[in-house]
Amino acid sequence: MSTTDVDDLPGTGAAAPIAVRIARAGLLRACEPSARGVAALVELVGPVRAWHAVRSRTATAGLPVEWMAETDARTAGLTPGQLDDTARADLATAGRVGARLVVPEDEEWPAAALHGLWQVDRIADRTTAPPVALYVRGGSIGDLPHTGITVVGSRAATAYGQRVAADLGHALADAGLTVVSGAAFGIDASAHRAAMAAQAQLPTLAVLACGIDRAYPAANAALIERIGELGAVVTEYPPGTHPSRLRFLVRNRLIAALGAATIVVEAGIRSGTLSTAGAAEKLHRPLMVVPGPVTSALSVGCHRLLQEPGRHLVTGPADVLEILRPVEHLGDQGHLFETPTAPADDDLGPSVKAVSDALSVRLARTVPEIARDTGLPTRDALDALAVLEASGLASRTGTGWRRSPRTRTRRSQ
Amino acid sequence: MSTTDVDDLPGTGAAAPIAVRIARAGLLRACEPSARGVAALVELVGPVRAWHAVRSRTATAGLPVEWMAETDARTAGLTPGQLDDTARADLATAGRVGARLVVPEDEEWPAAALHGLWQVDRIADRTTAPPVALYVRGGSIGDLPHTGITVVGSRAATAYGQRVAADLGHALADAGLTVVSGAAFGIDASAHRAAMAAQAQLPTLAVLACGIDRAYPAANAALIERIGELGAVVTEYPPGTHPSRLRFLVRNRLIAALGAATIVVEAGIRSGTLSTAGAAEKLHRPLMVVPGPVTSALSVGCHRLLQEPGRHLVTGPADVLEILRPVEHLGDQGHLFETPTAPADDDLGPSVKAVSDALSVRLARTVPEIARDTGLPTRDALDALAVLEASGLASRTGTGWRRSPRTRTRRSQ
Repeated sequence: MSTTDVDDLPGTGAAAPIAVRIARAGLLRACEPSARGVAALVELVGPVRAWHAVRSRTATAGLPVEWMAETDARTAGLTPGQLDDTARADLATAGRVGARLVVPEDEEWPAAALHGLWQVDRIADRTTAPPVALYVRGGSIGDLPHTGITVVGSRAATAYGQRVAADLGHALADAGLTVVSGAAFGIDASAHRAAMAAQAQLPTLAVLACGIDRAYPAANAALIERIGELGAVVTEYPPGTHPSRLRFLVRNRLIAALGAATIVVEAGIRSGTLSTAGAAEKLHRPLMVVPGPVTSALSVGCHRLLQEPGRHLVTGPADVLEILRPVEHLGDQGHLFETPTAPADDDLGPSVKAVSDALSVRLARTVPEIARDTGLPTRDALDALAVLEASGLASRTGTGWRRSPRTRTRRSQ
Repeated sequence: MSTTDVDDLPGTGAAAPIAVRIARAGLLRACEPSARGVAALVELVGPVRAWHAVRSRTATAGLPVEWMAETDARTAGLTPGQLDDTARADLATAGRVGARLVVPEDEEWPAAALHGLWQVDRIADRTTAPPVALYVRGGSIGDLPHTGITVVGSRAATAYGQRVAADLGHALADAGLTVVSGAAFGIDASAHRAAMAAQAQLPTLAVLACGIDRAYPAANAALIERIGELGAVVTEYPPGTHPSRLRFLVRNRLIAALGAATIVVEAGIRSGTLSTAGAAEKLHRPLMVVPGPVTSALSVGCHRLLQEPGRHLVTGPADVLEILRPVEHLGDQGHLFETPTAPADDDLGPSVKAVSDALSVRLARTVPEIARDTGLPTRDALDALAVLEASGLASRTGTGWRRSPRTRTRRSQ
């Protein structure tokens, strides 16, 4: 296995150094998503130093060893060199199935779509963070913050639900949007298929809960293949990974995050779709729900959603586009949702707020000073600093940390 | 035609003097509902003096003649004595079809249900007020403020809508509620029929837009007959009146008023049902709406309703009872909605508020004084006084008007 394999990957371009790509591939292999601690470590010291710490199982620059704990099981028995080889092997496997690893350092990274995941605490009992990187097969995912719209629903959909999902999928792709879903049977498949019948740049995108070299469900292998040709297939799981209940739930946060809004077409009372709906709400994205006959078990979950305030009842693509329109014109950039440049400190939680208050714009402060002033354990202070840095609210200098003026700082690797 | 006919009417009891009943029957005949001016006149001087003014086409006690204008066309060419005879004839005709005239002076009058109509300005381009009286065939309507629940929907209902209406009608009647509707084809008929299959005191009530001696639609004559036997049929239109588009719309305010909440089962985009829904909202009664397939034209109106805030999506009787429950336990009397004893002045509109402010609890003030102090035309001041009196917020004395202490004054006839 040589780095040549990696450099040959299609679509990687010249954006990020190969060391960054290997580091992030290694972190995806070593850490079960979604690991906020590890993601924060990457934000804090950059992917290369974070990967160095993980693969050598050492604490770097005063970082608490607890952050390593969750990766130990997955790296046990392998030398740092072997772990690098594993990362390279993952990249090569991806390349062999026509996929590439897209990293935050790439222009293509849909930062504005994924950044909000820092503001979500937990999903499915896992801490939540943006993915460390994404394996992608198909077109560029760089426009998703402008175009993504999530359509999800029950696997055991009725003919009614499938028809509504197809109407939505086709009309939304036709309107230039990218229909984001999970490649499952039922609603997902109907939405994907109908979107691909439209003439569009990236009509649809499937987020998998398994490796990019796998197809789940197997019966949808041809559909997933086709989505990779006409649209894009993405996953944060390294090649070879099998899906699991946990991974579906963790994956659902990405399905919600990659759409400017989430539309639920059909859902039973305990549908997994409700976890995607919950993630959309935690991300403050509009949650749109299609009603159905009250006599249908597959609409019970939809009606329960609609009985709570703040959800939008939608009857078709016209309603969806009507709700999106004001959002669409928010910024000059035409982003479907807010760019992450200036989150309010208050959105970030009390410990982050405390650390932010302890920082100065002019004078750099050390981590021990910040921990002492805030009364927070060093780990929590570092976690908060990582969040602040990721939010563009704090930046590291040679001697410590400073509060950023209100413009987004470009992260160093 | 003698008053003996009237005294023989079944169910009139000894509550109100016959002069009151004749006066109100005459007013129903002379004034197309819903006439706020005439209703206010009745509140102001009592039904007997109001009828005297109308039938003799004279202004009494400084009342503006404009209030009479709308009744002139209907009383033209008849002497006061002939108009009395007409009123007696109406009462007798009602008696012959097993109906009675229920007046606000009767114990049976559902004041708490109807009073809120003073707070609604206009419906279908008619000024709005409680009915002057109601022709009733069937059981007592006195419990409606405790039991009424309105179920309405499209005449051209689908099998789905009829099934849902029947489920609701039966379960709500079974829970001891009275299903109020309009005896139309489709949703109305399904709800009425299913309610009558339940064992209940007054399972259902139909409000007609025609005379109590008529059945509209004719094909529902047997249904309306049966509702009169097991439940009750009511109307504010005098015997012989034909229905019209205006009368359906004006009637719809009573359908909404007689229910503690209104449930819309199916409605097209321009359904007349939406006027009932609008009246329910103006009355501040919960508006509950059943969703349906987005592919059904008969659910378009329902979904439009649900796209505005404040409406309740209900999927069946359990949801309805859940929403009603907190309301039900508001007062000691078990009223489903507020009793009219103490409406806030602010609810009554700016001119009423101004007149209320111009009154004193201890010192009686004359109408000219009130008009001068408020800057209102005499007619508007009188209208406002009538509303205040009807609301128990003002009372007449020998020399003028006083603000009432915060208890309901019993109106004189």
